[in-house]
This record gives sequence, C-alpha cells and structure tokens, in this order.
Amino acid sequence: MRDAYTDQLDAIRDDLLTMTRLVGEAVSKATQALLDGNAQLAEQVISEDEAVDVLRVRIEEESFDLLALQNPVAGDLRMLVASLRMVGEFERMGDLSVHIAKIARLRVPEVAVPDELVPTIARMSAVAEVMVAKVGHIIADSDVAAAEELEQVDEEMDRLRRSSFRELLGSDWKHGVEPAVDIALLGRYYERIADHAVSIARRVVFLVTGEQPTYLD
Amino acid sequence: MRDAYTDQLDAIRDDLLTMTRLVGEAVSKATQALLDGNAQLAEQVISEDEAVDVLRVRIEEESFDLLALQNPVAGDLRMLVASLRMVGEFERMGDLSVHIAKIARLRVPEVAVPDELVPTIARMSAVAEVMVAKVGHIIADSDVAAAEELEQVDEEMDRLRRSSFRELLGSDWKHGVEPAVDIALLGRYYERIADHAVSIARRVVFLVTGEQPTYLD
Repeated sequence: MRDAYTDQLDAIRDDLLTMTRLVGEAVSKATQALLDGNAQLAEQVISEDEAVDVLRVRIEEESFDLLALQNPVAGDLRMLVASLRMVGEFERMGDLSVHIAKIARLRVPEVAVPDELVPTIARMSAVAEVMVAKVGHIIADSDVAAAEELEQVDEEMDRLRRSSFRELLGSDWKHGVEPAVDIALLGRYYERIADHAVSIARRVVFLVTGEQPTYLD
Repeated sequence: MRDAYTDQLDAIRDDLLTMTRLVGEAVSKATQALLDGNAQLAEQVISEDEAVDVLRVRIEEESFDLLALQNPVAGDLRMLVASLRMVGEFERMGDLSVHIAKIARLRVPEVAVPDELVPTIARMSAVAEVMVAKVGHIIADSDVAAAEELEQVDEEMDRLRRSSFRELLGSDWKHGVEPAVDIALLGRYYERIADHAVSIARRVVFLVTGEQPTYLD
C-alpha cells in the first residue's frame, strides 16, 4: 500500500514535469509563429493547449485523492499542496502562449512585430523559455538554490519590457497604434509567463523548506 | 476539539470574505483614481494591497495546518483545497488593481483615459465590481446557481473589451500611441479581474458539488 502511494506521488511529479515541457514548447512555437507570421503553427499552439489543461485536471484529481485517502503529512503534504498551486500557474502559462499565438494568427499574412523589435521579442521568448526549463530542473531536483537564482533571470525580462515601451512610445515610432498595442500586450504576456515561473520556483522553496519565501511584488 | 476545528474552517471562510471585500474596494478606488487622475488615491490602492497579501499567507497557513493536523475529508477537504486556490486568484485581483492604480499615477496630472472612453472603462470597472460582490455572495452562501450566472456577466466584459479595441484601432482615433497602449492594458487588467472572479466561482462549484466545472477557455 505504501508503495502504491509513493508511485502516485512520483506520477504527480512526472506529470508536473510533462506540463513544464509542454509549456516550454508552447512558448517557443508561439514565438516562432509570431515572428514568422505562421498561421498553421499558431493554430497548433492553440489546439495543443488542451493537453496542458487535461494534465491540470488530472494532477488536481490525483492530488485530491491522495489528500483524501492517504492523510499525507510533512513533505508529502507540502508537495501535494504545492502541486495544486503549481498546476494553476502552468495552465496560465499555456493560456498566455495561446494569447501570443492568437496575436500571430490575427496579423497573418503580416507579422505583428516590426523589424526593429524582433530582437527584443525574440529575447523575451528566449528568457521565458530558459526560465521554464529551469523550473523543470528545479522541480525535478528540488533545487532551492536554482529557485532563488531564477529571480535574477526574471530581472532581464523586466528590462526587456521597459526597453520595448521606450521604443513604442519614442518619437521615432512610425508604425502607428496597432503594432504598439500588439507589442504592449505581447510584452505583458511574456512577462507574466516569467512571473509564473518565479512563482512556481517559490512553491518549490516552500515544498523543500516548509518556509514561504517572502513575496516581493 | 471538533468545535475548534469548525471554528478554524469558519475563520478561513471569513478571511476569504474579507479578501473579497478588500479586492472589491481596490478595484473601485483604482478606477476612481484613474478617472479622476488622483495620485493620492492611487497610492492608497498600492499600499493597501499589502493587506490582501497578508490574508493570502494567513489563509494558506491556516489551511495547511488543518490539512496537516485534522485529516479533513469530503466537503471540508474540498473547501480547504478550494481555499488554497482561491487565495491565489484574490491576490492576483489585488495585483491587477495595483496595475490600474499605477497607470493612473503614471499619467497624473493628466488622465490616462480619453473622454470618449471614460464610459467604457467606468462600465468595465462596474462589471468587475459587481462580479467581485457576487463572488462574495457565492462564497458566503455556497450558491452554485449564482456561480453559473457569473459566466454571463463576464460576457459583458468581453464585449466592452472588444468595443474599446474598435475605438482605439479605428480611423477616428486621434490620441496617438500612449493612450492606446494604456487602454489596451487597462482593458486586459479589468478582463483578468473578471476572469479570476469566474474562476473563483468555479472553485465554489467544485467545493459544493465535488465536480470540476468544464473549463471553457
């Protein structure tokens, strides 16, 4: 009986890692669709998000069943509570990738991002993808030190977002309102993906240490 | 012992209702600060958000302690699991009100919202405030029917957001890039507040019925 219980806990962790991988792929593909004006790839991101939602429901149900039937304590209880919160964050990261894909789709055959902002958006995506990959490592290895480092990576996202605002509000901006609105919303979506990664990392700190990390924002 | 346990469950529900009230006030004040260009009121929204964060931590700790010590089952277990998820949503609603207040503060002594969009933004806020108030009622009375109705109220928010986009992307738009970006982001913030309200209502459905409502988006 104890073995089945351990297997169930391992299955939840494996499902969390699968969610991490799917979300990382979604961010990467959504950005590619955006920068290439690729409607087909955008559609793929939108339809593949269902797999993330299915995993959310499955992890929630598995965690709930373990809470109900096994009376977990200490570290196991913290893991289940953290998982219940983390799946919500992953689901949102998937949704945000869908939002990016929808902006890509809306502008096809044009590309939503003006040439001079392509490096900024590409870098935002790269930072988000690195953060998602690090989250996978943090969950797999319960790596508290890496969780703390993630906050520094997030600072680059904040800098990129400020730099994109300077560009679209500057006197040189010649693309008008629609691309400016697209860039402002895209910046918001990438920033939120990064925020969720930080938030998941904080849940891992709680899971391992039993301490709530101080919430900075 | 059983009485202390019931008291603790009641205390969590009371704290959730306090969070609901604080978030409703934050949305209302942030909108007033925005439409009046009132920096002092914007600052108040920003500083008062800490009370929401404090409640989040308290509810999480209380819920965790009950899970660890009391082995709750059935409805009580669902309530604690739902509470752990709901506090995250309320915290985000508070953060989104802070984002609205920060746009207000950034534009003082100007007003971020051009005259012709004041009715749309005021209505977005009114819809968000109604939804937050309904969420309080839904939590207090475990009202599943009201939770289902909330999805219809949310449709007005979607219509308002689309209408604001038509306006700022229309050929009549004469305010340039900055107010357009402000309106796009403000619309996003109000829409997300409404989404969180719907999401909390769905958690109450799960709490009462034990069934996960179908996730629509």
